[in-house]
Amino acid sequence: MDFKLKCDGWIKLIEDTLADFMEKAARTSQPCCRAGSEKSIYEAMRYSLMAGGKRLRPMLALATCEMLEGDINDVLPYACAVEMIHTYSLIHDDLPSMDNDSYRRGRLTNHKVYGEATAILAGDALLNYAFEIMLDHAMGSDSNMGAKVKAMGIVAKASGASGMIGGQVVDLESEGKNIPLELLQYMHSLKTGALIKAPVMASGIICGAGGEKLELLRLYAERLGLAFQIKDDILDVEGDFSLLGKQTGSDEAKGKSTFVKLLGLEESKKRLASITDEAVHALDYFEGKGVFLQRLARQLLERKN
Amino acid sequence: MDFKLKCDGWIKLIEDTLADFMEKAARTSQPCCRAGSEKSIYEAMRYSLMAGGKRLRPMLALATCEMLEGDINDVLPYACAVEMIHTYSLIHDDLPSMDNDSYRRGRLTNHKVYGEATAILAGDALLNYAFEIMLDHAMGSDSNMGAKVKAMGIVAKASGASGMIGGQVVDLESEGKNIPLELLQYMHSLKTGALIKAPVMASGIICGAGGEKLELLRLYAERLGLAFQIKDDILDVEGDFSLLGKQTGSDEAKGKSTFVKLLGLEESKKRLASITDEAVHALDYFEGKGVFLQRLARQLLERKN
Repeated sequence: MDFKLKCDGWIKLIEDTLADFMEKAARTSQPCCRAGSEKSIYEAMRYSLMAGGKRLRPMLALATCEMLEGDINDVLPYACAVEMIHTYSLIHDDLPSMDNDSYRRGRLTNHKVYGEATAILAGDALLNYAFEIMLDHAMGSDSNMGAKVKAMGIVAKASGASGMIGGQVVDLESEGKNIPLELLQYMHSLKTGALIKAPVMASGIICGAGGEKLELLRLYAERLGLAFQIKDDILDVEGDFSLLGKQTGSDEAKGKSTFVKLLGLEESKKRLASITDEAVHALDYFEGKGVFLQRLARQLLERKN
Repeated sequence: MDFKLKCDGWIKLIEDTLADFMEKAARTSQPCCRAGSEKSIYEAMRYSLMAGGKRLRPMLALATCEMLEGDINDVLPYACAVEMIHTYSLIHDDLPSMDNDSYRRGRLTNHKVYGEATAILAGDALLNYAFEIMLDHAMGSDSNMGAKVKAMGIVAKASGASGMIGGQVVDLESEGKNIPLELLQYMHSLKTGALIKAPVMASGIICGAGGEKLELLRLYAERLGLAFQIKDDILDVEGDFSLLGKQTGSDEAKGKSTFVKLLGLEESKKRLASITDEAVHALDYFEGKGVFLQRLARQLLERKN
């Protein structure tokens, strides 16, 4: 397996599908008599959605599907929905009243280009559209309806107040405070972890995994999510603006608690390595079939952005 | 039928169910190690959701269900979901970068109490929770799954970029401009109309309506939505702060186009009456069973807030 080639292929599939969904959204919107003014919302949605990025979350959904020998076409809508939800959360997170960031992935943030009002609505619309495309897919055929509804429920729960949004609230309220490691880990398990776990679990459900298989997928995804966040904190200290596409040292400047701050750089790196190992070994059960997901976990440990 | 008594009974059922959903959300959220800080998001959600109001949208869902002799318990989750989506849209609409309103239903707006960041997240969380409760309901039993998914799809489409959010964008971009009546009507059909039509249609689908029945429900709901908006514009000119719970004259002050501005007060009132008539007569087909919905349409014409 050429890992890089496989990644690139999946990223292309994901980006093409996202572009198709956006094209379809703009096309099926009722023509606005004279103004054509709501076009701008689709531009703003597309600006952030098509801004590149690792496409980690949708890739996890597709790779899980491949490991389970499922049908990629049944998983793609969930993969794209999760990426839309991730993107909306970044748009809202970057707003002046939230993290007040001007750059994201080397480009101006959404509100810097389209203004705050449109950025808020573009975020809302992406969250909403995520559910539209999953529901459209479910309406497309009556087969496997129970699993589809369950997968949508997993995504919905992961992105809500008991998942990602809950994590954002804890994050907001922890700023400038010294918080214990336990709370930091809990915060990240919601803020970042929930939406890394959701595509793996939703894909697993759609592809018919249950029992032990589903538990191992959960373990893999939870460990991966935690490793991802520790690496993020390390990059904020050690990273390179030109590779990261955003300023380093921003956690420090904002008084945010991080793994590096609480554990030190060396201990953070040690934990990152051991947690990545746990993720990798969770998939030993699947023998050769989990090799891409295992390699992906190792790759995230080495990433520069 | 004592109309007032029936309304009050339904409002109580709706508010009790909304309160239950919020209580459940706060309870099932994972306990936050030490901080308990994400409690605030549920407080902010509840503050706006439980702030009273006419509960028009959920009431439409329930009354449609009764007319069709469906099971109220199957419609309640959709009724509440639509009210949550309506509430989130008000929270985001009131933000400084949007309409910048300080009062809503006689109380401070969400961001005035909880701050902008929490208000944005509370809105996001309400939109998300709307889908969570509909999906939870669908997962509860496999029966009528196709209709449930279809009803969710109707709600999702109505609240998205080709529905309510699209209307908000047209509204934002029309501020301070003179727009033609056709565009004003189009804007309202999305901004207000879509989420008045959705509970009627979703309830209709859940209760097994099809063909002609569904078309008549659509006609009723579309006429009602338009009448509702014309009345809103009239109230902004003629209304009373103490009854409205918000400042009058705000459309004028913000340079918004309104039916009153484009048609004059008298012509607006004439249209309101004839459009209300159309809504009422759309339900003649259902004979005595549509009497509550017909009375509701007439009542909205007379309302003071």
